[in-house]
Amino acid sequence: MIKKLLIANRGEIAVRIIRACKELGIETVAVFSEADRESLHVQLADEAYCIGPTSSKDSYLNFTNIITVAKLTESQAIHPGYGFLAENADFAELCRECNIIFVGPSPEAITKMGTKDVARETMREAGVPIVPGSQGIVENATAAVELANEMGYPVIIKATAGGGGKGIRVAHNEQDLIKGINITQQEAATAFGNPGVYIEKYIQDFRHVEIQVMADNFGNVIHLGERDCSIQRRLQKLVEETPSPVLSEATRSKMGDAAVKAAKAVNYSGAGTIEFIYDHNEDTFYFMEMNTRIQVEHPVTEMVTGVDLIKEMIKVASGETLSLKQEDVQFNGWSIECRINAENPEKNFMPSAGKINMYLPPGGFGVRVDSAAYPGYTIPPYYDSMIAKLITYGATREEAVSRMKRALSEFVIEGIHTTIPFHIKLMEHEQFVSGQFNTKFLELYDVMKS
Amino acid sequence: MIKKLLIANRGEIAVRIIRACKELGIETVAVFSEADRESLHVQLADEAYCIGPTSSKDSYLNFTNIITVAKLTESQAIHPGYGFLAENADFAELCRECNIIFVGPSPEAITKMGTKDVARETMREAGVPIVPGSQGIVENATAAVELANEMGYPVIIKATAGGGGKGIRVAHNEQDLIKGINITQQEAATAFGNPGVYIEKYIQDFRHVEIQVMADNFGNVIHLGERDCSIQRRLQKLVEETPSPVLSEATRSKMGDAAVKAAKAVNYSGAGTIEFIYDHNEDTFYFMEMNTRIQVEHPVTEMVTGVDLIKEMIKVASGETLSLKQEDVQFNGWSIECRINAENPEKNFMPSAGKINMYLPPGGFGVRVDSAAYPGYTIPPYYDSMIAKLITYGATREEAVSRMKRALSEFVIEGIHTTIPFHIKLMEHEQFVSGQFNTKFLELYDVMKS
Repeated sequence: MIKKLLIANRGEIAVRIIRACKELGIETVAVFSEADRESLHVQLADEAYCIGPTSSKDSYLNFTNIITVAKLTESQAIHPGYGFLAENADFAELCRECNIIFVGPSPEAITKMGTKDVARETMREAGVPIVPGSQGIVENATAAVELANEMGYPVIIKATAGGGGKGIRVAHNEQDLIKGINITQQEAATAFGNPGVYIEKYIQDFRHVEIQVMADNFGNVIHLGERDCSIQRRLQKLVEETPSPVLSEATRSKMGDAAVKAAKAVNYSGAGTIEFIYDHNEDTFYFMEMNTRIQVEHPVTEMVTGVDLIKEMIKVASGETLSLKQEDVQFNGWSIECRINAENPEKNFMPSAGKINMYLPPGGFGVRVDSAAYPGYTIPPYYDSMIAKLITYGATREEAVSRMKRALSEFVIEGIHTTIPFHIKLMEHEQFVSGQFNTKFLELYDVMKS
Repeated sequence: MIKKLLIANRGEIAVRIIRACKELGIETVAVFSEADRESLHVQLADEAYCIGPTSSKDSYLNFTNIITVAKLTESQAIHPGYGFLAENADFAELCRECNIIFVGPSPEAITKMGTKDVARETMREAGVPIVPGSQGIVENATAAVELANEMGYPVIIKATAGGGGKGIRVAHNEQDLIKGINITQQEAATAFGNPGVYIEKYIQDFRHVEIQVMADNFGNVIHLGERDCSIQRRLQKLVEETPSPVLSEATRSKMGDAAVKAAKAVNYSGAGTIEFIYDHNEDTFYFMEMNTRIQVEHPVTEMVTGVDLIKEMIKVASGETLSLKQEDVQFNGWSIECRINAENPEKNFMPSAGKINMYLPPGGFGVRVDSAAYPGYTIPPYYDSMIAKLITYGATREEAVSRMKRALSEFVIEGIHTTIPFHIKLMEHEQFVSGQFNTKFLELYDVMKS
């Protein structure tokens, strides 16, 4: 087993990883930027080292400094968390060259899944349903038009190197498409250094449903059920839950099988998530993308399965086999996560950094808080606005929702604005309570005015 | 369903009950003594009323004031929590006369189980194993000596009206016994107004194992497994866990059946606990007593069953049938609770009231905190010293213990002394980790010096 581990991240996910290490008896090394000197992850780790100034580029993305700290502290492994270096194949490759365990999949798996048209083709070959569209990159606008005429409009144009909502355009007719292809190619060349684009049929009303997978280095792959992340604002997830309120047992099982196939197709290792477009009307699903890392919303899966995903990642990276088989995975109850952001929901979610004067997280049965906040902590304006994840568990969805409302109402964070008032309104929103919604929910309803 | 409920208690259990009510959509009325004006339960309830000065006798035990507030606020029910009025048959009777629902069993059940010799006889008749001893009250020392000669020494002398470690004496020979009977009778007459005593065989090395039961008003009774509460200091429980590290599946099942029989024998309703003496060497168990209320350690049962016991109590009191049958009760994983007291474990657990300057409870996966503390809160010296319950959940005992150690190490409470350092040492103690111990653990080992 790994004896010492460096956490190449900050905020709640750094704290989350430190907690797992402490429970496993692993020594922890934190790294931090100048802006994060007073952070909780710095206080909780056994050792902590400054790796650069405020700018992420010069600190949390600074390969050399991070590898140097790992070497100096004799850390055997680096956990990248999510964001920053988590899906950076070059960094994973550098770790390998430096004989440091990268807690995650191989650079090859990261690259395959990170290049969208390659991922699409790999999935097609593996028999995972993909959205109808081009086979690989479209050569030019003419080829795209020909294909679109076959499939019917609207279609979506995607830069193969894009991601996180960038390099995407919808075309409703031929004219849109020709123009869109050209613009997206030019933008992608500039932004990602890769002009390649492909087209897919545009599925308008869908739910975002994803499957958590876990794999070891011996070819064993299991899935741990789905998460429904359809509540999004500008493609950013705000609320996630498991199980999905709309998935049938049969579809759940098919989607799980597809996810395992997808992971096997790239010789995956560690924790990963296969995101699907789920068309509730047709009861069909299509591969969207794979996130080759732990996700923000992993706690809801932990709550219903009892499996500590971060510990499992570390064990697998240490060379252990998976601690459980597919048939050992049991699902109990319901879990929901609300992302508490330092933003003002009354003012179009404007960021609201600053000092937390008073802080008291909620407690009691079925309530979990993952956060790096504390009374007197000053949230720096430079990084992610998410300051806490509030997760509830209930025997039923109704109980998980009522518990979330109760926990939100107790959560004291004074000195800054947060999205707590938004989440309270959402938990009371009839359409949310019904479970019947898709990713357009927040476009359709002004939750703050409900 | 009850629409408005008065909580006749303070501290963490008042907060616990308010949380359950909020999740059920029930309005809450808090009551408080002058010393508790700034308490969290007062802040969290929908309404709050002062019921008297600092002294418990004049506030939390003040029948008239509490009933008056219930009537004035049109509360339909009163939840007594634990301690104070929870096992007071007269108060339960008064509620009945005033047409207020007492969230708990009938006054008759409280009385039957509260009178120790009556409880013993009721259990004997119901076929629940009891410790060999006298049938009812012993008439005099001569009768006691005769019986003791039959059973063999040591024997234990108990005042029928005693409890909580009071009115109990051990006799190792005839001389001890004669003297003990006389003294205990005199003391009991003075202290409890009832001189009745009885004797039992003294079982020296045992574990304290108890069964959680839940019953409705329609004769349905289920049990929710056991809790092992063998870690005690001067008969006060400090750590509780479920399952018990030593109970076999067969014994667990027998004990559960015995507990259900016990509850049925007194037409029980609501949440209750049958405490057993468990002789691990002989694999036998005996009825110790029944607590006719919710217990401090109820959370560990909630963690492994997923059942919210406080909600279930309120539903049953509202006239609903039990929400689950025995076969629906499922047990998953392991849970441990540490009672965090405002005491100095370095100085013989001397109480340490005062102001909490800094407060940050631990978080993350498998961690639950039930507390009424907050940053800046001043703990009054007049009541219970328990200021928080830290509960962890794990897939195995090993995980629950390592998680507890991690959570304890994170728990920040500054300004007062607490028992956190004691619990950290305990979680690292070889004998505790092995699971092999009995109620004498803290007499045998000086945990703080380990």
